[in-house]
Amino acid sequence: MTELSRRHILTGAAASVALAPFAAASVHAAAPLSGKQAPSFYRSKLGDFEITVVSDGARAIPLPATFVRNISNEQVLAAAEAAYMPKGSIIAPFNPIVVNTGAKLVLIDTGYGPGLGPTVGLLPFTLAAAGIDPKAIDIVLISHMHGDHILGLKTPDGALAFPNAEIKVPSVDWAFWMNDDNMSKAPEGFTKASFGFNRKIFSNLADKVTRYDWGQEVAPGVTAVESSGHTPGHTSFVIASGSGRLFFQGDVTNVPELFLRNPDWQVMFDHEPEKAVQTRRRIYDMASAEKILVCGYHFPFPGLGYIEKAGTGYRLVPAAWSPVL
Amino acid sequence: MTELSRRHILTGAAASVALAPFAAASVHAAAPLSGKQAPSFYRSKLGDFEITVVSDGARAIPLPATFVRNISNEQVLAAAEAAYMPKGSIIAPFNPIVVNTGAKLVLIDTGYGPGLGPTVGLLPFTLAAAGIDPKAIDIVLISHMHGDHILGLKTPDGALAFPNAEIKVPSVDWAFWMNDDNMSKAPEGFTKASFGFNRKIFSNLADKVTRYDWGQEVAPGVTAVESSGHTPGHTSFVIASGSGRLFFQGDVTNVPELFLRNPDWQVMFDHEPEKAVQTRRRIYDMASAEKILVCGYHFPFPGLGYIEKAGTGYRLVPAAWSPVL
Repeated sequence: MTELSRRHILTGAAASVALAPFAAASVHAAAPLSGKQAPSFYRSKLGDFEITVVSDGARAIPLPATFVRNISNEQVLAAAEAAYMPKGSIIAPFNPIVVNTGAKLVLIDTGYGPGLGPTVGLLPFTLAAAGIDPKAIDIVLISHMHGDHILGLKTPDGALAFPNAEIKVPSVDWAFWMNDDNMSKAPEGFTKASFGFNRKIFSNLADKVTRYDWGQEVAPGVTAVESSGHTPGHTSFVIASGSGRLFFQGDVTNVPELFLRNPDWQVMFDHEPEKAVQTRRRIYDMASAEKILVCGYHFPFPGLGYIEKAGTGYRLVPAAWSPVL
Repeated sequence: MTELSRRHILTGAAASVALAPFAAASVHAAAPLSGKQAPSFYRSKLGDFEITVVSDGARAIPLPATFVRNISNEQVLAAAEAAYMPKGSIIAPFNPIVVNTGAKLVLIDTGYGPGLGPTVGLLPFTLAAAGIDPKAIDIVLISHMHGDHILGLKTPDGALAFPNAEIKVPSVDWAFWMNDDNMSKAPEGFTKASFGFNRKIFSNLADKVTRYDWGQEVAPGVTAVESSGHTPGHTSFVIASGSGRLFFQGDVTNVPELFLRNPDWQVMFDHEPEKAVQTRRRIYDMASAEKILVCGYHFPFPGLGYIEKAGTGYRLVPAAWSPVL
């Protein structure tokens, strides 16, 4: 009996090369590689609603020394390595969702829009694969006004990507990000860039955008929930139908293997870091007690799971994948 | 500011009902629910190979008192609940894979075949969605001769589902399961049923089936690795191309939230329970040391991840989902 051994695994490649002539002698035609990934959308029922997670893609984010403000870069790099991320980076997915209430099609967050790179801005393609016409979207809800959530509101030529949709943004974020005084005082880098993205998308839309407040029912069955800190107006949504509940957490935390496990880590994208930490613990203490299904914008696709307390932080228990609806 | 609260979450449904008349007054046509899940296939590159996980579906398996031989039913039910499984059951996925070497199309395990129920036997549909013609499969590798791995070899009318494929089974399993004496001594229930499934599939295929031994290169770049215990001939595969390695673990363990975390739990499907435990620990100690990518037939779709030691057992770190190939 052959046992699994290091040597065994390591010599597999050599054996495969040796067998190449045999493969070439096959009577069957060589199978062309498909070269194409499956479309990344995923459906689930929530009461009478249908939820479709529609991926905008994913990208590797490098980990500069400033990536987590209050933690050494060595620790961050070690955590990324322990999570099997590509060396010196994390893979951040982007998971907008479509809520179909049967009467309204509601898109929550819009991704980057096409053009930033080959692995993001995929939402239009994912929507097409899922059979969802951008013209049929009735409401676009924005959780907060960062580029990866708003840039997809416009096509590369500046037109509205969802031309028939009411666009709803958190009033607190609008007041902050559309304020010229705040922009002039913003530090260079991520924050300054975020102001620029908001100008690009919203400058000519001020009278078209609806500003919502926390506690409001912003779409049928969808309630805006205060979860600020990541941005001043950062908002989560409770989606409710029948006995079904889904908590769309937006960016309460980033990729779970780093930041859900370490809720006190202050990622560079958190605008008010200490408030963001308080919000995380408040939300996750509640979510773990409620055992409510959570959708994370930066959780591994399809981003659905449950929050469990673990050690001094939390862990994600992914929801079972259902191959049928 | 509205804070997330129990009451808030619980009152969401009532608010949604109250808004229904508003929804009905929409100027846009009501959006019909799609009612259709995305096809569950997922691709990744492995050196020069293309790996496609092609789901056969998933099903809820009830948890009778005998489900884990050496653990109380209370403990098992509690673990299933902690993993957010439907009450009194676990969701077991079924993940066959296709290895495209560029010259050969190799299918590993075949699922249940159509007809057993609405949530399994989906492999033909998943293959079609992935653009893989069953007639183009060159080799079918069977990891072990349990129903959920072999029944898909035939269509409901008894024809070969992969008519041009060489079928390769582990010689040790063949000797065990095709032995009439063993069948006559088999206990009623799962084991007896497994003998029946093997008769149904293989009785008229004895001279068409190739029996392979551990250590053999059973397809280009694919090496059979002894991992017995779950069945006498249970086999894993190391798939190697370039610097890429994938360890197809078959049923070394079942769903990870229960059995990877508790490797000493003897699930009723393990034929030689104590040997299965030894094999699990040997394989996972190696896989965690090697940091090799693992594919689990019963891991959450797409079944790809890394094994980490955790407490007295192990945990699965899912591989990052890539929305592009």
